[in-house]
Amino acid sequence: MIVLISNDDGIGANGLRFLIDRMRSVVPDAEIYAVAPDGPRSGQSSAITVNQPLSIITHPDYNGAKMFSVTGTPVDCVKLAMHAIVPRTPDLMLSGVNHGSNAGNSNIYSGTMGAAMEACMIGIPAIGFSLLDFRPDADFGPTAPSMERIIRSVIKCGLPEDVCLNVNMPAGCEPQGIKVTTSGRGRWTEEYADYVDPFGRKFYWLTGRYIDMALDDSAADSYWLSRGYVTVTPIRPDQTAGETIAGLSPIFD
Amino acid sequence: MIVLISNDDGIGANGLRFLIDRMRSVVPDAEIYAVAPDGPRSGQSSAITVNQPLSIITHPDYNGAKMFSVTGTPVDCVKLAMHAIVPRTPDLMLSGVNHGSNAGNSNIYSGTMGAAMEACMIGIPAIGFSLLDFRPDADFGPTAPSMERIIRSVIKCGLPEDVCLNVNMPAGCEPQGIKVTTSGRGRWTEEYADYVDPFGRKFYWLTGRYIDMALDDSAADSYWLSRGYVTVTPIRPDQTAGETIAGLSPIFD
Repeated sequence: MIVLISNDDGIGANGLRFLIDRMRSVVPDAEIYAVAPDGPRSGQSSAITVNQPLSIITHPDYNGAKMFSVTGTPVDCVKLAMHAIVPRTPDLMLSGVNHGSNAGNSNIYSGTMGAAMEACMIGIPAIGFSLLDFRPDADFGPTAPSMERIIRSVIKCGLPEDVCLNVNMPAGCEPQGIKVTTSGRGRWTEEYADYVDPFGRKFYWLTGRYIDMALDDSAADSYWLSRGYVTVTPIRPDQTAGETIAGLSPIFD
Repeated sequence: MIVLISNDDGIGANGLRFLIDRMRSVVPDAEIYAVAPDGPRSGQSSAITVNQPLSIITHPDYNGAKMFSVTGTPVDCVKLAMHAIVPRTPDLMLSGVNHGSNAGNSNIYSGTMGAAMEACMIGIPAIGFSLLDFRPDADFGPTAPSMERIIRSVIKCGLPEDVCLNVNMPAGCEPQGIKVTTSGRGRWTEEYADYVDPFGRKFYWLTGRYIDMALDDSAADSYWLSRGYVTVTPIRPDQTAGETIAGLSPIFD
């Protein structure tokens, strides 16, 4: 069994090593390739590097996994792994564990999920894992049993065609269980901190506060995360809103 | 009426000016704000800039539109426009015209569509336009009537909730008509050109060949584009594969 692992926090992130450990625990003889960005690439979504070249750097093995970094985005890592690193199409792709939540509409900005969706589009069963604690020294420990159960289930049962999983996990407690959910509605507000440079010119830094609009929606990931559950949201990279086509067609006739 | 316009080819791209001209033609007294990256940002998807600050540069007006560039991604442009440029939430957001196709699964990598989806998530009716010619001096001329018709229709009829439009247009001919479509299936192959640097180390540059897997799918954008039609694909930023939830739930119980 060949497994490709990536993330968006970079080759040095603790979450990457925690994910390798989980995979190793589920399938002790898996052939694991970790191919991660050479530094933090949070918020890179499905970005690809088109206007400059990419390099691959080889790192020492970790827990039997071959380790590589790439000078690009999470999606670059998956594409370049397929081109130049893995010996054949992997049987499974795992992304993360992200330091920070990718629940709600954060899915669309997430490099962790960008990598998982890229693998999904290639036809590889893919799971992105995120912990609701963005600190570099976040404690992933209590999530180990849930993560191993999800990995084991996907290996055994597979996933629906063209669908990958966005898994989010509460921090600082034993999870209450696992729920299959939707991406909860929400939006960001007060998105920038304003500054003035030494020459009197304004500049801006992204920050913001997330407004959870799914507080009462018992289908939503954010609803169950706030109650201490691990959430599993099925994600389809193809964003066609097929059910609106019949209604839209007369408008443009 | 307030209109926000952005793109991923940057403030200097011809496609941006062509789009401003179309909007001006449809609503001569529209208050237009063009907020675009300060250089090319192709393939930036929904990437956001989190680890460095952003600046806004004011440029001379073009065809009555106020012009600004931002030192970030297309999504940064929309977010920062909302924070610091537009006087209130715009009535319409247009993105492009992209120099190059965003049909098929290119939607997921597209900065043009990243900007449109960002506006959609804010609740603004949004349309991304792309021409199947990536050259800087591409001839957008023949698409003007189709573009104006689509803009006029969306102003008149609105769009389904939480849905924006990915419009792709054939190059070098009068379009045969307009079709509402799905994103055609496809995948990239032979994705990298391989090089060796002066020190004997390998490096890689993204390239590749798109394999159209929707050649016989008369619902797909690529099918109609190849027959000379303008395609309008409704896009939902929320990627939840809701119809798979019931089937997945027992797997993780």
